[in-house]
Amino acid sequence: MRYNQMEVRLPSLSRVAVCGGTHGNELSGVYLVRELMRTATGAEAGGDVSVRAVLANPRATQLGRRYLDTDLNRCFTHAALNGPLSDAPPYEMTRARELDSPLGPKGSPRAVDLVCDLHNSTSNMGLCVIAFSDCDWICLHAFRYLQRQMPDIPVRYIHLDVKESFSLDSVGKHGFALEIGPQPHGVVRFDIYTAMKDGLQHTLDWVRLFNSGAVFEGGPVDLFTAVGHVDYPREADTQNIMAAIHPKLQDQDFCLLHPEEPMFQTFSGQTLRYNGSEPLYPFFINECAYYEKGVALYLARKRSVTLPTLRVHKKGHPANFVSVQEEEEEEE
Amino acid sequence: MRYNQMEVRLPSLSRVAVCGGTHGNELSGVYLVRELMRTATGAEAGGDVSVRAVLANPRATQLGRRYLDTDLNRCFTHAALNGPLSDAPPYEMTRARELDSPLGPKGSPRAVDLVCDLHNSTSNMGLCVIAFSDCDWICLHAFRYLQRQMPDIPVRYIHLDVKESFSLDSVGKHGFALEIGPQPHGVVRFDIYTAMKDGLQHTLDWVRLFNSGAVFEGGPVDLFTAVGHVDYPREADTQNIMAAIHPKLQDQDFCLLHPEEPMFQTFSGQTLRYNGSEPLYPFFINECAYYEKGVALYLARKRSVTLPTLRVHKKGHPANFVSVQEEEEEEE
Repeated sequence: MRYNQMEVRLPSLSRVAVCGGTHGNELSGVYLVRELMRTATGAEAGGDVSVRAVLANPRATQLGRRYLDTDLNRCFTHAALNGPLSDAPPYEMTRARELDSPLGPKGSPRAVDLVCDLHNSTSNMGLCVIAFSDCDWICLHAFRYLQRQMPDIPVRYIHLDVKESFSLDSVGKHGFALEIGPQPHGVVRFDIYTAMKDGLQHTLDWVRLFNSGAVFEGGPVDLFTAVGHVDYPREADTQNIMAAIHPKLQDQDFCLLHPEEPMFQTFSGQTLRYNGSEPLYPFFINECAYYEKGVALYLARKRSVTLPTLRVHKKGHPANFVSVQEEEEEEE
Repeated sequence: MRYNQMEVRLPSLSRVAVCGGTHGNELSGVYLVRELMRTATGAEAGGDVSVRAVLANPRATQLGRRYLDTDLNRCFTHAALNGPLSDAPPYEMTRARELDSPLGPKGSPRAVDLVCDLHNSTSNMGLCVIAFSDCDWICLHAFRYLQRQMPDIPVRYIHLDVKESFSLDSVGKHGFALEIGPQPHGVVRFDIYTAMKDGLQHTLDWVRLFNSGAVFEGGPVDLFTAVGHVDYPREADTQNIMAAIHPKLQDQDFCLLHPEEPMFQTFSGQTLRYNGSEPLYPFFINECAYYEKGVALYLARKRSVTLPTLRVHKKGHPANFVSVQEEEEEEE
């Protein structure tokens, strides 16, 4: 089967949610969502698309912190959304349900068509589309459009290959995080804000094009599938970190890391090396929020995925959402 | 009077305190102080100097936050240290007294000779010595030594011209903050950590040289005296900021800002300009911690100060700590 010989038709995306402040100290998204709320631009930007701007964690945003009680962006599993709540649940557990109601419910036909959740990183990430699927053609075609429209910033697709999605963007029928860095948490830099604003505008442009019947040709795209992570070396008794990211690795997100290359430097000066056997791509290198999660960096494999040609499924057309023309792989 | 014709003799600096984690999320200082505590290096580094390493705000450090209840580094005024305490005082008010006891008491003969307090900034500050005096020859000669020993990083002296000193470094007979950036709060970058470690080592080297009788020749140095600050434009009702630092000003700390040059860009795209009448030097541009203080940047005047020649006052010498050879300014 050759995907580029396929054509996929999917329903139009009439309801889009743009979320910011899921982490209250990631300020580009906070101010972009506030700007969307303040102006009519948000609702109008998509043409036939209804765009809803959401400040996801207003209490953490007010305090300028990532979260109050627990990381909101880990509270969108089915168990967290639907299981029993304790008498005094963490604020974010309650807030996740408040968001799931109008934007989801997760997994239901009522869910919005697309959730775009705006994030910042202290890592040198450029612009990343982060999603739980490597075959959601909406996310992947939107990503390829962003990549082509924004040649001045590296645009990459990160595939989180986990058993169950857990983040706010997973509440929609389609969804991804739009992650941009480097920017310190608690700070808004105009260059990073502008990159996020442009990325969002191109996303909404793509949605409008898709809805209007544009045909997006198939073809290969590279994506990064996370395959593991590495923690900082820590003292056994205190769990304090004993080393920082090595200066040769700092800011080198998405640059291939080979076995035996420097990974950490201890505070007393010793170099510690990558002891894996496979060259892999590091990302989220030295992300502030991941110190407490025990993650100094993630590692990914780069893969090529071939997108099918994509167009909207128009009402009145045959009700097969996915129309595939298969063809045997040609043998050489 | 020409200062470079003067010679000043000051008592030796036998007790030095090196403090980190005064702001619990400024991690270079946290890990450098922990490294000093862990190794014997700290105590030995100064030769005849006793060096005491202090983790100033351990509870905030534990939580990875700037402070728990209030900014510790504003709690060292005489009123805050000696006035009545409420029944449930902010943690940092209590902690300030705990620190003032062994390191001070502030203003007393028992106080340590020098406090060097380690800080990070999200601003592009390079390395700064920040002090409350423009005529503390210990601070200024140590600064000039740092500047000469560290040619690869800009080293500057900021003079805070306020009625009363308020910070931890003011507890010593002499004291300054060693401020290094840019580094996101909550993150440790090895390059910034190394610059701080080198800065501290050169400071301790200078103290040892001074104590051993080295003569430090007088001469001019430039310093930056803070003369004001500018807040972000804010919405009247919510106090939310409406603009970020203009991209042309971002990271341009200590580059002369002229009237009518861009200062902010609103989130809707409008450029706002510096409306002062005097060209001044901005610093702490877009510092994370100052959003809540209503400070987008500080402004400074650059001045030249002429240092006197400095040497230690040795025991047995005449008891005049300051020996000045004055000379009439030559007229041209």
